[in-house]
Amino acid sequence: MDLKKLLKPRTVAIVGASEKAGFGGDTTRNYLKFSENSDRLYLVNPGRDTIFGHRAYHSLSEIESDVDLVILCTPQNTIIPLLEEAAEKNCGGAVVFASGYGEVGPEGKEQQKELVELADRLGIAIMGPNCAGFANFIDGIFAFAFLVEERDRKGNIGMISQSGQIVLGGLDSPNMGFSHIISSGNSCNVKVEDYLEFLVNDEDTKVVAAYIEGVTRPEKLVTAFQKAALKKKPVVVLKTGRSAKSQELAASHTGSLSGADKVLRAIFKRYGVIEASDLAELMSFSAAFSWLAELPKGERCVFMNVSGGEAGVMADLADEYGIELAEMGQDTKDYLQTLVPDYGSVNNPFDMTAGIGYNTPVMVNAMEAISKDSNVDAIVVAYTITPEVWDETISHMVEAVSIARGNKDLKPVFWIPFIEHTRDKESADALKASGTPLLPTGRYGCAALKKILDFSVAEFEPMKPAIPEKAHSGSYSLSEFESLNYLSEHGVPIPPQAVAATAEEAVEKAKALGYPLSVKIHSRDIQHKSDVGGVKLNIKDEAQLRETFTTIMDNCKKNAPNAKLEGVLLKPMLKAGTEMIIGVNNDKDFGPMIMVGMGGVFVELFKDVQLAPAPLTKSQADNMIKKLASYPLLNGYRGGAVCDKEALVNLLVKISEMAADGKDTVKELDINPVFVTEDGAVIADALLVVYDD
Amino acid sequence: MDLKKLLKPRTVAIVGASEKAGFGGDTTRNYLKFSENSDRLYLVNPGRDTIFGHRAYHSLSEIESDVDLVILCTPQNTIIPLLEEAAEKNCGGAVVFASGYGEVGPEGKEQQKELVELADRLGIAIMGPNCAGFANFIDGIFAFAFLVEERDRKGNIGMISQSGQIVLGGLDSPNMGFSHIISSGNSCNVKVEDYLEFLVNDEDTKVVAAYIEGVTRPEKLVTAFQKAALKKKPVVVLKTGRSAKSQELAASHTGSLSGADKVLRAIFKRYGVIEASDLAELMSFSAAFSWLAELPKGERCVFMNVSGGEAGVMADLADEYGIELAEMGQDTKDYLQTLVPDYGSVNNPFDMTAGIGYNTPVMVNAMEAISKDSNVDAIVVAYTITPEVWDETISHMVEAVSIARGNKDLKPVFWIPFIEHTRDKESADALKASGTPLLPTGRYGCAALKKILDFSVAEFEPMKPAIPEKAHSGSYSLSEFESLNYLSEHGVPIPPQAVAATAEEAVEKAKALGYPLSVKIHSRDIQHKSDVGGVKLNIKDEAQLRETFTTIMDNCKKNAPNAKLEGVLLKPMLKAGTEMIIGVNNDKDFGPMIMVGMGGVFVELFKDVQLAPAPLTKSQADNMIKKLASYPLLNGYRGGAVCDKEALVNLLVKISEMAADGKDTVKELDINPVFVTEDGAVIADALLVVYDD
Repeated sequence: MDLKKLLKPRTVAIVGASEKAGFGGDTTRNYLKFSENSDRLYLVNPGRDTIFGHRAYHSLSEIESDVDLVILCTPQNTIIPLLEEAAEKNCGGAVVFASGYGEVGPEGKEQQKELVELADRLGIAIMGPNCAGFANFIDGIFAFAFLVEERDRKGNIGMISQSGQIVLGGLDSPNMGFSHIISSGNSCNVKVEDYLEFLVNDEDTKVVAAYIEGVTRPEKLVTAFQKAALKKKPVVVLKTGRSAKSQELAASHTGSLSGADKVLRAIFKRYGVIEASDLAELMSFSAAFSWLAELPKGERCVFMNVSGGEAGVMADLADEYGIELAEMGQDTKDYLQTLVPDYGSVNNPFDMTAGIGYNTPVMVNAMEAISKDSNVDAIVVAYTITPEVWDETISHMVEAVSIARGNKDLKPVFWIPFIEHTRDKESADALKASGTPLLPTGRYGCAALKKILDFSVAEFEPMKPAIPEKAHSGSYSLSEFESLNYLSEHGVPIPPQAVAATAEEAVEKAKALGYPLSVKIHSRDIQHKSDVGGVKLNIKDEAQLRETFTTIMDNCKKNAPNAKLEGVLLKPMLKAGTEMIIGVNNDKDFGPMIMVGMGGVFVELFKDVQLAPAPLTKSQADNMIKKLASYPLLNGYRGGAVCDKEALVNLLVKISEMAADGKDTVKELDINPVFVTEDGAVIADALLVVYDD
Repeated sequence: MDLKKLLKPRTVAIVGASEKAGFGGDTTRNYLKFSENSDRLYLVNPGRDTIFGHRAYHSLSEIESDVDLVILCTPQNTIIPLLEEAAEKNCGGAVVFASGYGEVGPEGKEQQKELVELADRLGIAIMGPNCAGFANFIDGIFAFAFLVEERDRKGNIGMISQSGQIVLGGLDSPNMGFSHIISSGNSCNVKVEDYLEFLVNDEDTKVVAAYIEGVTRPEKLVTAFQKAALKKKPVVVLKTGRSAKSQELAASHTGSLSGADKVLRAIFKRYGVIEASDLAELMSFSAAFSWLAELPKGERCVFMNVSGGEAGVMADLADEYGIELAEMGQDTKDYLQTLVPDYGSVNNPFDMTAGIGYNTPVMVNAMEAISKDSNVDAIVVAYTITPEVWDETISHMVEAVSIARGNKDLKPVFWIPFIEHTRDKESADALKASGTPLLPTGRYGCAALKKILDFSVAEFEPMKPAIPEKAHSGSYSLSEFESLNYLSEHGVPIPPQAVAATAEEAVEKAKALGYPLSVKIHSRDIQHKSDVGGVKLNIKDEAQLRETFTTIMDNCKKNAPNAKLEGVLLKPMLKAGTEMIIGVNNDKDFGPMIMVGMGGVFVELFKDVQLAPAPLTKSQADNMIKKLASYPLLNGYRGGAVCDKEALVNLLVKISEMAADGKDTVKELDINPVFVTEDGAVIADALLVVYDD
């Protein structure tokens, strides 16, 4: 659906315009106060002739010209007739504030369905229902229903939110400047994904900030994310639903079904989407990208402080957040040592002392020297900016940053305060003008810095998830033999195996496999083979094999009387190694997701697994393994084996390709364990569940 | 040393007083501007007759009366003669701003030593050197060297900091009100611990806030902490030194040796000291305790929001920070449902909607109903307070909180905003007056809330660490047999064991022990017995034992030719169980520290261990075990055994008592593993290192 008339209308009608408090009055007041002009605005209210001194129309029909956009401030029961009336005016967009739709149960859902059907038929893109409107700061249109402080907010952040209150939070945030704000509400025929695509494509938008409760068009979402990733346009997302409670709340708030939360987060990771976990992070990450003149080329930072105590605090925080402290070259250190008093020591964090902090030109020299150092990628000045300047150090330091940033070659600079105030506007404006993000305090500031550094150095490999082409209902499990054969037929290496229906056949097949062998029951109906006495290991010769065949068959007949037994599965005993697990879970929206983790109870307890959409490139698979907290166990930890990680990576890639190809076939795959040794990575067991349609 | 003349002086002299910028001028200006009176203030400067219109004395000697406190704004080389001159005036306290002492290497350390010797001899308590002074807001004395904004800061927080800049951060923090602020600098003859004790004893101080780089008087520190814990006076501490880099910086900043960082943190935990990890936390935790009318009686919170989106964000944060969401009673829910529109649903976090949020009396009713619910311990209102009120919701909600808090029975209320501004002063003042802490945003706010809830419900058991009575130099290891015997002799249960010097003796001893046995080399010189072929397990009978004896002795003769072999150690094979490790490490300052963790590489990798000072009560030991992330493995995780946790707790307590008694004997103990089964907890191996003096 074309969003042009909705988001960039040439003519606008506010229906239910008023002078009274409430949606109608507040929207009218806001529009008149904050929009660039009201020439092409029509106020509609059947009971008024003028509103705030402007002509009021009694109905949409009374308006002479076409109306691109209607803003409906009226109750739910008026919406359908108003849309029909608007369509007569060639309307292509409508903002619907009314609630009582998808968020309130079956009846409301029915109403929403009816609304979508009508709007689709009339070709009207609807924002909402149950939303708070939007503003387009580029074209000077302010159609938002909540009252806000009067100040200039034009900038380059495009914000979308399923909560109007959270848009208000953005508007209230002192460091945020916007291209567009959009409160999408229930997102009926225009979805969060559509707005996202709009903002990713929009040249006036440098950063996208989004509050998301759920998405419904996976294909569109990943297309938008991919476009953003290729353009290196930062997308900052706050997604609720990490807890069961917030999933429940989202359902009753905008009727969003948040789907598999972990899956969406894995999708975010694939596309370098920057995740925020509260509003302060959403705003501060976005504002930082918005202000930042250019992304750093690497992650090595030098912190500049004016206090030994604060330098110590920064050192601990940098360590905690994994921010790399640059090791400056000796030349740089020697030079800096000439700038500080004898008692000062040149370290990182660098306690500049009064020798530098109170002296603008000296600080400029210090920054330039640090910036020139090839071991440094960014500079972080850490000092509190108070709301008034009663300490001239601030002014000196801000001035120094501004002057130093005037040098085109200067590496990126960030500023982190220690105590939160609304910061002195003059200082903040100077930093903004110089392209220096003014981050929030301590922990929040370091969180933002780390996200920016990670985003800056991340290399994006376009690799779209294998989104299923249709929905599936039923499924069934394959036996281990069948599962492994399926893998093998689809390019995944497996160890030799054979099935035998009789003891004689087992002995025959064993000749090719060689002893010692593992022998397991072969049956689709038995998944927990050990539990029914269906597994014997280390079978050394023919005699033992014959005996084992009988034992296993007898055990299973007794312990699983209803299972159809097809014989036994024979495999050479594998060399044990570090045990890993690899899983595939086919998400109905985003397709097969690959999971990898170390085997055993500890890892489950510590939730140390990585998840990513299939297919994977080698470097993506490698990254997953390296991000495991238990990764050192593959790497010769405490005298253990140095495992063949490349074999594991290759195996992961093959499995991911198999899963992607099988996006409408493979429902689940559980490989547990994979033995990783010095010599390779071998699948020891597998269970595949496939769709039956 | 008596701190009265230092911190509560009746007469004060500023030496080096001036009108110019710098320590002398800024301190003089601050003193005259912020102190309650200057009647008993003497300004001293040899070159001036008046300073800011006040009489200037040319020397301390010229002052007619006694001088309790001298504030020395002059350089290092003047300090010794000035103190001698001050002593003539019965001076008992001196603030020394000058630097160049303990923080700058051997020569400075020598100067500091000389300073301490003189001050001790003259009976002068020194603040500093290398400090920024102090303020006593109760008696109206402002002797601080950094310029600050003009506003009322009197309150109930007592702040000590080894960094002057961090005191400045406190003074700049909008929510902080103080009884005392103290910049202790290098803490030469008055230590951080002394100031801490002063503030814990001080009736005007409700909360102690401290920035600490290191402590030197462990006994005094724990005594002060214990006093605070018994009074339930919150002590909030920011201690740097979590990273190697910050430890290095502390040494060059105030000459602090930060000692074993983890040990100090375990001491904090023992005394319920509230740890902050950056300045924003130090300030916000302190301010929250300062404002809070009374501590909650439990941890179950109800969150009140005015937006579904924000409610979802709070739900995720509460989950992340482990804040318990109260399950309100049905009566309460039914009542609240009558206050919200039909589409509103009563949940927790509770989206009040406009029905409650915009209506003061209704919100008061809602809060009272929630407070009366016996399932609720505290209420958290979550809404952004902007610097100006352009949205009347804020005013309604703040008013409602004020009115509701007027009810003496109302449970504690907290306020968490989502976006950071300097908040509307009128709203903030109203909340403060009603005893409602205005917390910082989202994550910081939840961190503060969780700390307050934990502190509120914590039960303190007085149990002082076993601080060693003297320093020790050398030490030596005992054999496993000797180690276990030492434990047994000191009340720690061990399994049966025997040593045998010959095969014959082994066979004889084995009769009492019973087969199967483990057999290990018995030698103080061999610590890694397996590495030299010195361990054999599951020895089933006499014949095997004889053979094993020979094998082990031969192996060790060959592989550890220099070790003195004393025979073998025999023990019945133990029933394997969940493997735990227990360790003791005797800290030179705080004595034996008990460590407990799960055995195996995973736990080491995930750093999942708990540390606490010896001795332990049963409930302290129980808490240590329960705080392990791997605790579920003791508790029937995934079909595993439900272990005898009480046996493990008892073992920990016994070991802690042994270690405390041996505070000047036991250097290290490594018990690895302890087998914990359904039936008990048994030590399988132990290595003890004891002091040789």
